[in-house]
Amino acid sequence: MRPSGRAPDAMRTITIEPNFTRHAEGSVLISFGDTRVLVTASVEDRLPPWLRGKGEGWVTAEYGMLPRATHTRGNREAARGKQSGRTQEIQRLIGRSLRAVTDLKLLGERQITLDCDVIQADGGTRTASISGAWVALRMAVDKLMAEGKLTADPITQQVAAISCGIYQGTPVLDLDYDEDSNADADANFVLLSDGNIAEAQATAEGATYDEEGLLRLLRLARIGCNDIFAAQRKALGK
Amino acid sequence: MRPSGRAPDAMRTITIEPNFTRHAEGSVLISFGDTRVLVTASVEDRLPPWLRGKGEGWVTAEYGMLPRATHTRGNREAARGKQSGRTQEIQRLIGRSLRAVTDLKLLGERQITLDCDVIQADGGTRTASISGAWVALRMAVDKLMAEGKLTADPITQQVAAISCGIYQGTPVLDLDYDEDSNADADANFVLLSDGNIAEAQATAEGATYDEEGLLRLLRLARIGCNDIFAAQRKALGK
Amino acid sequence: MRPSGRAPDAMRTITIEPNFTRHAEGSVLISFGDTRVLVTASVEDRLPPWLRGKGEGWVTAEYGMLPRATHTRGNREAARGKQSGRTQEIQRLIGRSLRAVTDLKLLGERQITLDCDVIQADGGTRTASISGAWVALRMAVDKLMAEGKLTADPITQQVAAISCGIYQGTPVLDLDYDEDSNADADANFVLLSDGNIAEAQATAEGATYDEEGLLRLLRLARIGCNDIFAAQRKALGK
Amino acid sequence: MRPSGRAPDAMRTITIEPNFTRHAEGSVLISFGDTRVLVTASVEDRLPPWLRGKGEGWVTAEYGMLPRATHTRGNREAARGKQSGRTQEIQRLIGRSLRAVTDLKLLGERQITLDCDVIQADGGTRTASISGAWVALRMAVDKLMAEGKLTADPITQQVAAISCGIYQGTPVLDLDYDEDSNADADANFVLLSDGNIAEAQATAEGATYDEEGLLRLLRLARIGCNDIFAAQRKALGK
Amino acid sequence: MRPSGRAPDAMRTITIEPNFTRHAEGSVLISFGDTRVLVTASVEDRLPPWLRGKGEGWVTAEYGMLPRATHTRGNREAARGKQSGRTQEIQRLIGRSLRAVTDLKLLGERQITLDCDVIQADGGTRTASISGAWVALRMAVDKLMAEGKLTADPITQQVAAISCGIYQGTPVLDLDYDEDSNADADANFVLLSDGNIAEAQATAEGATYDEEGLLRLLRLARIGCNDIFAAQRKALGK
Amino acid sequence: MRPSGRAPDAMRTITIEPNFTRHAEGSVLISFGDTRVLVTASVEDRLPPWLRGKGEGWVTAEYGMLPRATHTRGNREAARGKQSGRTQEIQRLIGRSLRAVTDLKLLGERQITLDCDVIQADGGTRTASISGAWVALRMAVDKLMAEGKLTADPITQQVAAISCGIYQGTPVLDLDYDEDSNADADANFVLLSDGNIAEAQATAEGATYDEEGLLRLLRLARIGCNDIFAAQRKALGK
Repeated sequence: MRPSGRAPDAMRTITIEPNFTRHAEGSVLISFGDTRVLVTASVEDRLPPWLRGKGEGWVTAEYGMLPRATHTRGNREAARGKQSGRTQEIQRLIGRSLRAVTDLKLLGERQITLDCDVIQADGGTRTASISGAWVALRMAVDKLMAEGKLTADPITQQVAAISCGIYQGTPVLDLDYDEDSNADADANFVLLSDGNIAEAQATAEGATYDEEGLLRLLRLARIGCNDIFAAQRKALGK
Repeated sequence: MRPSGRAPDAMRTITIEPNFTRHAEGSVLISFGDTRVLVTASVEDRLPPWLRGKGEGWVTAEYGMLPRATHTRGNREAARGKQSGRTQEIQRLIGRSLRAVTDLKLLGERQITLDCDVIQADGGTRTASISGAWVALRMAVDKLMAEGKLTADPITQQVAAISCGIYQGTPVLDLDYDEDSNADADANFVLLSDGNIAEAQATAEGATYDEEGLLRLLRLARIGCNDIFAAQRKALGK
Repeated sequence: MRPSGRAPDAMRTITIEPNFTRHAEGSVLISFGDTRVLVTASVEDRLPPWLRGKGEGWVTAEYGMLPRATHTRGNREAARGKQSGRTQEIQRLIGRSLRAVTDLKLLGERQITLDCDVIQADGGTRTASISGAWVALRMAVDKLMAEGKLTADPITQQVAAISCGIYQGTPVLDLDYDEDSNADADANFVLLSDGNIAEAQATAEGATYDEEGLLRLLRLARIGCNDIFAAQRKALGK
Repeated sequence: MRPSGRAPDAMRTITIEPNFTRHAEGSVLISFGDTRVLVTASVEDRLPPWLRGKGEGWVTAEYGMLPRATHTRGNREAARGKQSGRTQEIQRLIGRSLRAVTDLKLLGERQITLDCDVIQADGGTRTASISGAWVALRMAVDKLMAEGKLTADPITQQVAAISCGIYQGTPVLDLDYDEDSNADADANFVLLSDGNIAEAQATAEGATYDEEGLLRLLRLARIGCNDIFAAQRKALGK
Repeated sequence: MRPSGRAPDAMRTITIEPNFTRHAEGSVLISFGDTRVLVTASVEDRLPPWLRGKGEGWVTAEYGMLPRATHTRGNREAARGKQSGRTQEIQRLIGRSLRAVTDLKLLGERQITLDCDVIQADGGTRTASISGAWVALRMAVDKLMAEGKLTADPITQQVAAISCGIYQGTPVLDLDYDEDSNADADANFVLLSDGNIAEAQATAEGATYDEEGLLRLLRLARIGCNDIFAAQRKALGK
Repeated sequence: MRPSGRAPDAMRTITIEPNFTRHAEGSVLISFGDTRVLVTASVEDRLPPWLRGKGEGWVTAEYGMLPRATHTRGNREAARGKQSGRTQEIQRLIGRSLRAVTDLKLLGERQITLDCDVIQADGGTRTASISGAWVALRMAVDKLMAEGKLTADPITQQVAAISCGIYQGTPVLDLDYDEDSNADADANFVLLSDGNIAEAQATAEGATYDEEGLLRLLRLARIGCNDIFAAQRKALGK
């Protein structure tokens, strides 16, 4: 029995509110239940020095958590003077996931930065970030195309991410904080709308798991990502 | 004529949405027009080492701006590895303003931290932060009193803040970003509900100003803060 | 009764010793009683990257306090690895104050940096810094003009600063450390020789203050700044 | 055809030289072909503050790469003043992997730190680090048991790690640098001697992959880890 | 011929002005010609954690250079966020030199910090710092003895330092900046009043030197330090 | 009697293993007894900005100690976020020593970085670093000459370094850790194969020393460096 009473393969409610802020080229507030992440996409014509002159662009991400997004207040990373290893690991994952569906040559010499800031955390902040970031990216690219700055669409398909894990011996989908802190295994899958896998990360916490366990988690992830793909399209009015 | 078409003594619409997030002891989303700041109040029983053992508490603040709160994306301070001078100046001001209406002895040996994170910026982020922080602080103290952890109320009165400035020769209230970037003088007043001044800061940008100018700005600020005091009470259902 | 026995509107002795060091283009040791600040003005032909190519110059300031300028030894900021929020707030104020009397277009594409290092502290270090920095800046600009590097004078008038506050219910001028640590309100005014105000900052510490209080502080500040203007001219032999 | 001429399921030569340095409680130089990592295990009786008083110990890891371990010289992280996101991600992975086979209660209130320093890099530095770290940890624990400081063995089984990937369409085992830089997908598996999985991470680089691809990579990893388990036992003379 | 016209074994004028600032337990402004260093000695009853409980005290030093102490303005280390290697090397040398004449057991569990801040630089700032620091330390210890906090004198003798070098083939004493920048070899000697050597550091810059050269530099240093010992005693009125 | 039983003028066994790693242009593992340092020489065509355009090159060094090179584990400097004063002092010394035998004009506009990483420490790590770095530098320059990138040899002679000290009243050569921690005086000499001195640093630890003592240490250092010069030539097969 899950703490939330959900069935093992049941997602929390997913909502994606587009245009949550007005300055960014793309912006959404995405919620996976009580987890809420504000994602903005910023287009800049300037690439960082080490990426210039190759005739292609870059998609990158930054991740942060507001100090009181969590049950007890955490340190503000800006005040501490550095980003934690966890933060860096997550923002690298978000960037890779978005680049998996972007043709950087078609993007041209510009950079799109996805800022994922967690307003409220209840498990699954990295997967909500990736799933929301795709919508913000899509909006920013649509804007570039509408303005005639891009003629061919550099986005090749949808990408979404979801966590799953083994909780009290049962594989379950979309862990909330209570489950996440007590799971035997904890996995994050980044899946593409063509059915392929962009990233799979499965970590044993208490008990380890076997091949069959890994496959069962992956199958749950497919169910979840299909829901997210639909929510992404709906948010874009497509 | 102001860019927004407002009268010189007209505020932007103020809204204060309480309980915007669920973990914090107090939380509001405050808007001054397009400026939106999420403020949370976090109560901790532990004081920083240099404040311990004096039989009193502490109220402090941290301030941050999401990278794409602004028209063009700014650096993430956590990634840069330090808070800017502007950030530190603002968070020191917020902390002082809240302490001006708190009896630290009555608060007891606990710390309340007000985190002010700017979701969207259009001028006046520091004054919105102070004005919203008072509501979050009030909510957190009400919770402590309801739980019986405090018997006497340590909050002595309301505090609010507003900017005003001299724009094209005319003193105006509640500058938005367009006005702020072009004002001859730029002032921030932190006022108390008993009519007194907690903090006055007036800076000449292009032209300087005289005593009469300072007083006219202060009088505008009184108008604005009275509106904010009313909005604060309304948000608390009082 | 003030701890020093001074009348409420009495300044401490002000001395400004020009050419205290020999390498800088301008240099003074300014004393407000026991507060002593060494100020140097350094002229550089190179602007920071973000200021280049606009056909104008820049005036900026840095502030520091020697570790044992104070009653008990403070941390060396260079060893701690960062400047405190207080330091940054002060050096931003000094820079703004000097720019208020400088025509940056007339200055041309060069930068003048005012380094204000507190040798001994007894209250009022930021106001002594601003007041001394004007003399150092004046000396540096005179040198540029004597060398023919500038033909029109970019300095438009004098600027000076003084603190005042409410001490045991009485508005007093030029707080020393004993008064500063116990004042009910603490204000700093940056005034121009044409009578206008460049900056006003008034902070309630214990008690708050009203409009009348603010005006009385401003009037004391006028008395003080007039004395400083005279001392500045005397130091320059004018 | 692999650049090295190896068969798809062929590992590079693995060597594990125990006691490479003399001060550490455990120490090995592990080589996967031209990749060489020096691993030391350091036992300390003192836990970091946040782990004290729980009646259990901790196993953690730090990772570094000598500046010229690579083809072109990289920055020294100590000189740059921070560890990269990649470094932090790797050292977190190493620590988790070792804790997956350690009973922290049996370890008692002490910390064992595995320092993994890459002397020479040719792909697979994180997997060589994990595989070598287990041997160093085993040596350190054997020493604690021989000294009578531990009576029950806290190490539950062996752990090893290997990379595999899809190179030019073919799943291959134990990528070297040439393959790693050109692989379509890149995976790291951390496996236990009981056949279970501690960690699976598979990232699409160019092309993405499907479930069948993931399983084929996992099966290659099993082949590789079995070889490493044997090399670990041999190095310990068991 | 030396740029200054001095004879090879001629020192610049040495002056030591005691009590230059009033808060520190000991304070001097020491000048070697145009090189001027402000040194303060601060006594603290608290030792850093790693020195506590050994029944002895500590003497340490910090060194800094005001940004415009030099011909062209240097970076402020506090703003850059770290002390340079040169700064750290110098402050370690100053600390060691003073500890060479202090009986730390007799000092008791207290720390004396010598802050050496260069007001104006013209070569020899580290040797002036050491020479002045001894006077400031002596003053601080005299104060502790006068207050009855120390009964036995922990200072065993005088210590002084001077630079010398090989300039255009000739060994010369007390290099100024012009000589220092062009010397073939550059040495610093820290000598004790009993004739012994606390520290010798001789570095070849352009040409190297031989044993005879080293001895000639040492003999020049003896001449210089004897002058400094006399100036130290004179400053103390002894 | 020395702890190791060595005669006062006896060195520990010196070995220099060339080509210890394969990517660097020059690489050695040098051992002075149990002290082992891995040195690599990296050639880069790009100079740091402040050295460009002068028609000459640069030789520099970085130094690090693996956390468990020592008896008890030390902090990893990369994790601490800064290099210690000791590290910076040592790497500056290594760089100066190598530049003393390099004609930077003949080297041309390229930089050679010597990375000295201590694998195991037992006293004398800085002198082993310098002695090994010369071999790595020689190898890298030989490679540049073999490739025709240099026609004239920029290395003018050999450089080596050794420590000596006064241990229980007796001058001894090549201190190991046990002696180093208990020596009355501790010296490092950097000598050239033409007999001249590049650097002499002698520090009194407990007792101070006199001129005769300094000369006796220097003479011991000559004995030691002659052995090292021979070992350097042997490692190069000359």
